[in-house]
Amino acid sequence: MSASFGERVRAALVARGPLCVGIDPHSSLLGSWGLTDDARGARDFGLRTVDAAAGRVGIVKPQVSFFERFGSAGLAALEDVLSAARAAGLIVIADAKRGDIGSTMDAYAEAWLTPGSPLEADALTVNPFLGVGALDGAFALAQQHDKGLFVLATTSNPEAEGLQRAISETGRTVSADIVAVVSARNAEHSPTGEWGSFGFVIGATVDWADAGIAAFAPSAPILAPGFGTQGATPADLHRRFGSMSDAVIASESRSILSAGPTGLVNAIDARVAQYSEADRG
Amino acid sequence: MSASFGERVRAALVARGPLCVGIDPHSSLLGSWGLTDDARGARDFGLRTVDAAAGRVGIVKPQVSFFERFGSAGLAALEDVLSAARAAGLIVIADAKRGDIGSTMDAYAEAWLTPGSPLEADALTVNPFLGVGALDGAFALAQQHDKGLFVLATTSNPEAEGLQRAISETGRTVSADIVAVVSARNAEHSPTGEWGSFGFVIGATVDWADAGIAAFAPSAPILAPGFGTQGATPADLHRRFGSMSDAVIASESRSILSAGPTGLVNAIDARVAQYSEADRG
Repeated sequence: MSASFGERVRAALVARGPLCVGIDPHSSLLGSWGLTDDARGARDFGLRTVDAAAGRVGIVKPQVSFFERFGSAGLAALEDVLSAARAAGLIVIADAKRGDIGSTMDAYAEAWLTPGSPLEADALTVNPFLGVGALDGAFALAQQHDKGLFVLATTSNPEAEGLQRAISETGRTVSADIVAVVSARNAEHSPTGEWGSFGFVIGATVDWADAGIAAFAPSAPILAPGFGTQGATPADLHRRFGSMSDAVIASESRSILSAGPTGLVNAIDARVAQYSEADRG
Repeated sequence: MSASFGERVRAALVARGPLCVGIDPHSSLLGSWGLTDDARGARDFGLRTVDAAAGRVGIVKPQVSFFERFGSAGLAALEDVLSAARAAGLIVIADAKRGDIGSTMDAYAEAWLTPGSPLEADALTVNPFLGVGALDGAFALAQQHDKGLFVLATTSNPEAEGLQRAISETGRTVSADIVAVVSARNAEHSPTGEWGSFGFVIGATVDWADAGIAAFAPSAPILAPGFGTQGATPADLHRRFGSMSDAVIASESRSILSAGPTGLVNAIDARVAQYSEADRG
């Protein structure tokens, strides 16, 4: 029997450290890599990044929008990238931030989390604006197939504060409610002592007090965008996440990808070493 | 110069009434239509629905998730459906509920709202969990190309209440904040007296008082899912939306699609007549 998604991530973080390489074929990066700004360029970009990441980090995170902008040809490129990444033993988080209700949400979960589907990934980022409960079909499907979900909980961008820090009937912030409800789902579905497969997206530069969330015993992985170009450093991982650091997947994109295709391997190695030093420090 | 998206919707609602036909190639509907549960089936389903809708209603709304579950082949099918619908003079709202920040959000807007892009639609539904401000790049791109956005404001599903009715620093609900901020964007971008191109998604069965939103002078179209099988009737349109009824796009899917390919035209005609009667009544 294959391990749950949560336990597979836990093992990957122990073996390879927290760095997750984003796969973001942004127009400007395609240009600086000498690739065409089309689906073929996005495919090459993704496959080269997978090659460089394989054996160096445990986790990669393709950003779906940068493939979707080329329509079906872009998604075909993404299918090749997802498949190559999984074949290379990388854990693949499809960053698509999908969110809907009922059978519509189920269809998104099917698309990304069904074994054998063209867009099969190991996990999907999801958006809880329609309520965490609206994602229950996706939780069930993920659980059934040993896949994972990362629910947006608190993001670092200032525009998000009004909504995410609003106070619900529970007296908690929207973000705190999301953490609580997702944690409860993990408790329902996972054996005691194991990590659950329903993770959180928590921005690396979020002010926890402002966000109304306290450090919690992380029952599942925390995907933390905002490392690298966006400002958070390897040392920040421990400073900001404290006792929760071991659960953090530190996602970096531009800080690594801007090294270009020839500098990519060195950029990843250097960054992995920095996280490792920060961990010992 | 082509009219703004908001003004094109206003003209379509006057000419054709409020009914918007959903294009939802759900697995069970493909089966009852005698189609295969694959991208080819979804394509046939979509094209037949477009044929039936053309000349009968002004607006169609393909549900992206039901195409996305077939991966790139599903999106290729959707591209054909979008293109056929636009060629038939229908206004096409891609119901994808995308939401992200910065250049990632821009890439989604590019994918769906750029003239000549494979997935070109007339408007896109978007998710404001990361803040309405995080969508500003999409607002700008839509404005530039005379396209539209529909921002999720209040949905009817009970799981959404905790989040959408939370109270922000403004003292308003999350939903009321969204309505206010999107209305302000319309005021910035649209000439006085014209409808703006940044619409709202407001569930047809929402209790407005509970949602903390008051009737407002609709400066832009309101996409209202929840008519038909989900419970709201043509008479409810006026009862629930009152002075705002003229701005409502009443979206129905299963109530029409379950008529099957041979019953589709009659089902649409009957439903259009009911909305028209309710309007006179």
